[in-house]
Amino acid sequence: MKDFAARHIGTDGGDQEHMLQVVGATSVEQLVREAVPRSIRDDELPTGLPEPGTEQEVLERLHALARRNTVRTSMIGQGYYDTYTPAVIQRNVLENPAWYTAYTPYQPEISQGRLEALLNFQTMVIDLTGLDVAGASMLDEGTAAAEGMLLARRATKAKVPSTRFLVDRDLFRQTRAVLQTRAAGVGIELVPFDVDDEFGPDTFEDAFGVLIQLPGASGRIPPRAAIERLVSAAHDAGAQVVMAADLLAAALVASPGNLGADIAVGTTQRFGVPMGFGGPHAGYLSVRNGLQRQLPGRLVGVSRDADGRSALRLALQTREQHIRREKATSNICTAQVLLAVMASMYAVYHGPDGIREIAQAVHARARSLAVALRAIGANPRHEHYFDTLEIDVPGRAEEVRDAALAENITVWVEDADRVRVSVDETTTEQDLADLARAVAGALGVDAPQVRSATGSAIPPELVRTEPYLTHEVFSTYRSETAMMRYLRRLADKDYALDRGMIPLGSCTMKLNAAVEMAAVTWPEFARIHPFAPAADVAGYLELIDDLESWLASATGYDAVSLQPNAGSQGELSGLLAITGYHASRGEGDRDVCLIPASAHGTNAASAVLAGMRVVVVGTDPDGNVDLADLRASIAEHADHLACMMLTYPSTHGVYEHQVREVCEAVHAAGGQVYIDGANLNALLGHARPGRFGGDVSHLNLHKTFCIPHGGGGPGVGPLAAREHLIPFLPGHPLDQRGGRTEGAVSAAAYGSPSILPISWAYIALMGADGLRRATDAAVLAANYVATRLAEHYPVLYRGTTGHVAHECILDLRPLKAQTGITVDDVAKRLVDYGFHAPTMSFPVAGTLMVEPTESEDLAELDRFCEAMIAIRAEAAAVGAGEWPSANNPLVNAPHTAAALTGEWDHPYTRAQAVFPAAGGETGKYWPPVRRIDGAYGDRNLVCACPPVESFS
Amino acid sequence: MKDFAARHIGTDGGDQEHMLQVVGATSVEQLVREAVPRSIRDDELPTGLPEPGTEQEVLERLHALARRNTVRTSMIGQGYYDTYTPAVIQRNVLENPAWYTAYTPYQPEISQGRLEALLNFQTMVIDLTGLDVAGASMLDEGTAAAEGMLLARRATKAKVPSTRFLVDRDLFRQTRAVLQTRAAGVGIELVPFDVDDEFGPDTFEDAFGVLIQLPGASGRIPPRAAIERLVSAAHDAGAQVVMAADLLAAALVASPGNLGADIAVGTTQRFGVPMGFGGPHAGYLSVRNGLQRQLPGRLVGVSRDADGRSALRLALQTREQHIRREKATSNICTAQVLLAVMASMYAVYHGPDGIREIAQAVHARARSLAVALRAIGANPRHEHYFDTLEIDVPGRAEEVRDAALAENITVWVEDADRVRVSVDETTTEQDLADLARAVAGALGVDAPQVRSATGSAIPPELVRTEPYLTHEVFSTYRSETAMMRYLRRLADKDYALDRGMIPLGSCTMKLNAAVEMAAVTWPEFARIHPFAPAADVAGYLELIDDLESWLASATGYDAVSLQPNAGSQGELSGLLAITGYHASRGEGDRDVCLIPASAHGTNAASAVLAGMRVVVVGTDPDGNVDLADLRASIAEHADHLACMMLTYPSTHGVYEHQVREVCEAVHAAGGQVYIDGANLNALLGHARPGRFGGDVSHLNLHKTFCIPHGGGGPGVGPLAAREHLIPFLPGHPLDQRGGRTEGAVSAAAYGSPSILPISWAYIALMGADGLRRATDAAVLAANYVATRLAEHYPVLYRGTTGHVAHECILDLRPLKAQTGITVDDVAKRLVDYGFHAPTMSFPVAGTLMVEPTESEDLAELDRFCEAMIAIRAEAAAVGAGEWPSANNPLVNAPHTAAALTGEWDHPYTRAQAVFPAAGGETGKYWPPVRRIDGAYGDRNLVCACPPVESFS
Repeated sequence: MKDFAARHIGTDGGDQEHMLQVVGATSVEQLVREAVPRSIRDDELPTGLPEPGTEQEVLERLHALARRNTVRTSMIGQGYYDTYTPAVIQRNVLENPAWYTAYTPYQPEISQGRLEALLNFQTMVIDLTGLDVAGASMLDEGTAAAEGMLLARRATKAKVPSTRFLVDRDLFRQTRAVLQTRAAGVGIELVPFDVDDEFGPDTFEDAFGVLIQLPGASGRIPPRAAIERLVSAAHDAGAQVVMAADLLAAALVASPGNLGADIAVGTTQRFGVPMGFGGPHAGYLSVRNGLQRQLPGRLVGVSRDADGRSALRLALQTREQHIRREKATSNICTAQVLLAVMASMYAVYHGPDGIREIAQAVHARARSLAVALRAIGANPRHEHYFDTLEIDVPGRAEEVRDAALAENITVWVEDADRVRVSVDETTTEQDLADLARAVAGALGVDAPQVRSATGSAIPPELVRTEPYLTHEVFSTYRSETAMMRYLRRLADKDYALDRGMIPLGSCTMKLNAAVEMAAVTWPEFARIHPFAPAADVAGYLELIDDLESWLASATGYDAVSLQPNAGSQGELSGLLAITGYHASRGEGDRDVCLIPASAHGTNAASAVLAGMRVVVVGTDPDGNVDLADLRASIAEHADHLACMMLTYPSTHGVYEHQVREVCEAVHAAGGQVYIDGANLNALLGHARPGRFGGDVSHLNLHKTFCIPHGGGGPGVGPLAAREHLIPFLPGHPLDQRGGRTEGAVSAAAYGSPSILPISWAYIALMGADGLRRATDAAVLAANYVATRLAEHYPVLYRGTTGHVAHECILDLRPLKAQTGITVDDVAKRLVDYGFHAPTMSFPVAGTLMVEPTESEDLAELDRFCEAMIAIRAEAAAVGAGEWPSANNPLVNAPHTAAALTGEWDHPYTRAQAVFPAAGGETGKYWPPVRRIDGAYGDRNLVCACPPVESFS
Repeated sequence: MKDFAARHIGTDGGDQEHMLQVVGATSVEQLVREAVPRSIRDDELPTGLPEPGTEQEVLERLHALARRNTVRTSMIGQGYYDTYTPAVIQRNVLENPAWYTAYTPYQPEISQGRLEALLNFQTMVIDLTGLDVAGASMLDEGTAAAEGMLLARRATKAKVPSTRFLVDRDLFRQTRAVLQTRAAGVGIELVPFDVDDEFGPDTFEDAFGVLIQLPGASGRIPPRAAIERLVSAAHDAGAQVVMAADLLAAALVASPGNLGADIAVGTTQRFGVPMGFGGPHAGYLSVRNGLQRQLPGRLVGVSRDADGRSALRLALQTREQHIRREKATSNICTAQVLLAVMASMYAVYHGPDGIREIAQAVHARARSLAVALRAIGANPRHEHYFDTLEIDVPGRAEEVRDAALAENITVWVEDADRVRVSVDETTTEQDLADLARAVAGALGVDAPQVRSATGSAIPPELVRTEPYLTHEVFSTYRSETAMMRYLRRLADKDYALDRGMIPLGSCTMKLNAAVEMAAVTWPEFARIHPFAPAADVAGYLELIDDLESWLASATGYDAVSLQPNAGSQGELSGLLAITGYHASRGEGDRDVCLIPASAHGTNAASAVLAGMRVVVVGTDPDGNVDLADLRASIAEHADHLACMMLTYPSTHGVYEHQVREVCEAVHAAGGQVYIDGANLNALLGHARPGRFGGDVSHLNLHKTFCIPHGGGGPGVGPLAAREHLIPFLPGHPLDQRGGRTEGAVSAAAYGSPSILPISWAYIALMGADGLRRATDAAVLAANYVATRLAEHYPVLYRGTTGHVAHECILDLRPLKAQTGITVDDVAKRLVDYGFHAPTMSFPVAGTLMVEPTESEDLAELDRFCEAMIAIRAEAAAVGAGEWPSANNPLVNAPHTAAALTGEWDHPYTRAQAVFPAAGGETGKYWPPVRRIDGAYGDRNLVCACPPVESFS
């Protein structure tokens, strides 16, 4: 059996020989060693990484870890519920590379399948929350609540920004924890209140909003009158009402929209997405009309293509953090697309009747349990509830917990006198009987009979009457055969890594090996509640310990937190660690964050959310930090300097040789150095940010460490830090390992644990040497592409040795000047050649950034180079007037199969249109739509499933 | 959560209402009750079937069964070896509906992907066995050896058929068992011999062939001289040499071809296919030039399409059993395509170097173990071996076995003095040390060190020197990324159930639900040796007990054997049970098998292989058995009547009302009634063959009970019998449950156990009521289609009530007469409309047989009907002269995307060609080739991967 690294890396020894000749280097190692500055280069591989294992060995180790987790009947609830993932969805989405290896749908023409699934998701959220517009997923309920809070603040019209936000006391603890972190970052004061509180004229003074949870963390559903009184008071004061609503409860209970909420937040986890010890799953956020342009994150909308046909794409992109940079109001980038797809398909498969039946069954079981418990004196405290009972067991809460555990059931202990139990889709009659027996035992009474109860515990005036999921997509795919075909049909519309290369600069679309993905769906990782007892998650904790320590070794840092569940959250928590550190030293007024002009927009957005002021540092013509400008900025901000954010290798794809000097300059002024780990794939085995000047970095496990992009998420953005910042890493009030309780940036203590086995497996399969070989192969591939394409497209930046790092920027501005052909035209024409376009116009407008990664083989690299060269020749033909500038294969790209069958009024042939490269017929990817007019959709915003007729 | 039956059945209550109106029936139940003759109809649902469970409940029950199996380190060997299935193959083939829901590639234009994979399989077998032509998979090594024996007999030129077959004494016990069954069936005498035996001039007298196993079951590799002496003697006598060769050993050891064999047989299990308690996996059979037209089973060959491009299809189909009927020389039909694909991809992924490295590693470990064991006096008996050691432990074999078991290792006990241990790809150094320690413990000596051994135990003159796997397909896909894309590209060429309906009469292409497939890949079912101790397979045996009893209940029989691993083997064993029964009563001369003219050809072929004489019984114009002719035949053959074979409902798709009379007539004459269960999907819940006259039936789990067709296998063909035939059901010498040891028809006692969880799950999910509802929905769907299409195509047979059963035959002969358009044209045109064609020209030439099954939804049924109606109109246009007979969308079908880009010299538009139906662009399936010229390929037979240039 070959070693895994040889399977992961696309080029073998012979291929690399050839590539080195083209590049003009004598060995792969020499190439990289020449490129990486001597001043930061490691002589030895890092210690502390595992020896590489075979596929089977690593699977067996994962099985051993899995066996150390204990799957119990979870009745903990508190925002996480066991659920049945329909097998047809698990197999055909979660286990299907056509879905999980797809990229974020920035190229909408080749992403219509997942865009449709996300539009279904938005429609589902809109319907169930009773609001008007929903985005295409938040990271979890906690961060959705934080985004809702910030949105509420933006939406207030007060001249002086108000600073207070009222927060329901009956709120999930983890939601409160995330709100606290995020409010502190931007100077918001959280004011606790109760829906039943009396309030006077000053309640909403200086308050821009209020958050109500429905049902409450205690399970309670307050009376409609209380909610409406509060909503009216908020609105009268010009404040926004944010409602955190359980989506399954919303099938039976009046929706946030019906109750007057402006904004709804929550999670879709219980719609078929396994608990996974906390994540990943898709959060949601929906708003009333008028707020849609304020929505954070991605929003799918309907537009039209060049033929005027309905087509989907991301709407209103100019709202987003990568455009708005330091003016951004959110730093959300990667979302939870794969999980949003699963949740939406759960709704598609069950339909409105099915969802209602599930909700009714859950509620009926909760009712049965309530009656049985009341009969033995374990009184539910609240008359009205959906699925959760808060039970009075004075002084016996721990006994109840232990007795339940003996029945293999976990419950939530609120305090010494109260436990909470939640019923979900998977709860059986037997579970209810077992739980009732456990409670009875703890109270020393006879076990009650659990009988079917009649009636409802939902207040009559809050019973939902509005319909939902009325679009026919939610009623069409009811048989498994129909569902399977729908999923295949959508997948077939999309281009993902299972079809060909996705050479996206800085996004590192490498192999997501099947063996790495295997453990994700094992019940011992999937069916674990995030608040399960520590003894039940020993396997998870060991895996997390391993991964933290391996990542720390690989990056040269002293500690790693896996909590941030996206790169954006890693950045934010890193900057908050820096502000915390400064504050702890009495330097709380250090708030300036230096960011190079070339930085990714999310850097600046995160700095804003951490309460920092962004100061842009110039770059020289080669794209390196302008040292003189840096020194001037440092001098200007001297005492206020908090940190500098750097990406290394730079976003220009080169190893800056002065990186040590930059770090030293910042340190000398008392600042901290934040190194963005987006480009870590160019460093592993050669240099470690924690050793060459970084104080803190976030990594992207979905880039360097093989978690698949899932069509736009999930991601994991761990934070790695040096010793002095460890006290300021994200904490969590419900962490099984204890430790810091403040600073939560994700709802779950370990963010998205169920996908951590992927990165764990990758490192266990590769070992230190394999990781280095991957870096070498990635750098070689980038240099090979740069060399082959240089005579056709100028390569914009090179390091001092003439080499690029793991990616290269092709300058298309001369092409445009000569021929009128744009980056867009080239990107769309690549679809005809069977490729996903490289990153467009980042970090430099008018360019393409190509990152081939180590996983592509030589044949695919050559196929890409030849396509780019052929496209250059096509553009030249346009420039030479052989083809009109308004009618040529570039401006008309991409070409659909349907276009072949109509009139052909083009000066090139049909074959040139769709099979421009030799052999292009084999495995041809057919885009389902022609070029999409994004602006049209932004002018005519439609972000829910349109009536079917509109597609005709 | 909906009940599973509602997910399995495509039409819901509302749909069925509509369909009933069209059909003119008042209720589904009434429709079926009217159609099924009163004389055989059950009033009640059968008892003994489980209550239906939800997906999750059934999964949990399967997990509980899985936990009762014990996965150990298997060193039993004897033809079954643990192996690593590369995760990329498991996920993208075995767990991918695009592969597993495909049908047998009888429509080659829409099967190019799996045909290519099978061509790779044939090439792999050809290369490794050193012979010239290989077929596309046998059922297992035992049946392959039997087919090899029969082929050898056919190949002898002797005027008087010789009757003796020499069989190596050093043969796997299960191979011998199958040979005995099969030899007895056709009057062959097996003569044991040893390669080292002296032989004289009469050794080969009356012998048509000899079977040599290499390496032997003992692990021994005999000297080249001995083999060659034997081969020469055989050839001198005009006999054929059959060699059973281990394919992994063949990477290092001289191939059968090199040694002069005419025929090679064996298994490809250890090429990445889990042991699965015995199956399924793909057997192989290859032959020297000159014998290819004698090959049993399917053979993939290269031909060309209408554009002259290289294209694949099944070659020489006129050899096959369904054509040759009572002249057939083999009854093989369903093969093991899915497993052959896996094995071939294992070779594609590892390539020649990888396969050689694996073989070398296995051999080196066997050497290490031999040295260590010799050091403690546990002497390997043979100097030359590949992976298996036969160890002398006089009187201590059982102690060794028990000591090994204590180390979690299973070994093979040959007798009280000898154990055999086999090393495989998965054996670790630790395993060797554990085994050596166990042996030492049993012998009462200190454990030896196991050290790497040098040298080779392969006789120098038998070291392989010929290259293998030299075609570039075996060197191109070495990275996982490349392999994943190759698998996707092939899958995309094919049409399977995940794209649309496959309305194949008598093949019942229904839903293969994801939840049913889940357990197949669990290690507790996959990594179990077929000869594991009974205590280690308690879960399997319970599952088998359940399934036998449920199938018996559902069919009204008294017992079921799950051993036959295809319908053909079920038929054969059923007929052998009948001959055994007659013989036991002193009526051994009953050898006449009556078969209706309309029967499936395999029936007759099986009868021949059971040593019976086939007498054809006529049918009346309605397709029913002609009772008068039947009575005449019975009278004529009176004392020789063995049995009658019936399919019910008939292959004409109707419930014959006289079925009881037919059975009674046969019984009255002392004959047995064999009811072919191919059409059982039309009976479940309404009538039971074991109650209305059948003595024995084979079922097709891959039809009625949801095992996917896998592109042409695996299948399972259980035998169900009444009490008096139970003693004659297939036995097996190595059955963990004991019982009869004779009559094996499969190499493993339970045939293909690893796929039995699929059918177990189906029945557990549906329950008796669900199975009946499925039948009802299937019958309704067939009647709906028949009614909608009747005015466009005559429906050939209907029952007395005017209804069809679960399928209908559309008569296209009038169409041909009127328009010249053939069945072939309609079938290929259906591809353009996005359908797999129905069964063509069976049971009546010039017809299409349509079985929609219960899993299709109304929209898909309507789409199919509308396509057929539109095609009828197109044909009418041809008939009316609107389109020339040689240039119209029917004769030119199917149309490829490539064809759109060239000159268009057709009198219809491109859009008419490829998007003939409204909405056809959505999810369009593009055939990769145009119509294939099968005859060209048969004249120019190429059955291995052709050089790449030939595709250009």
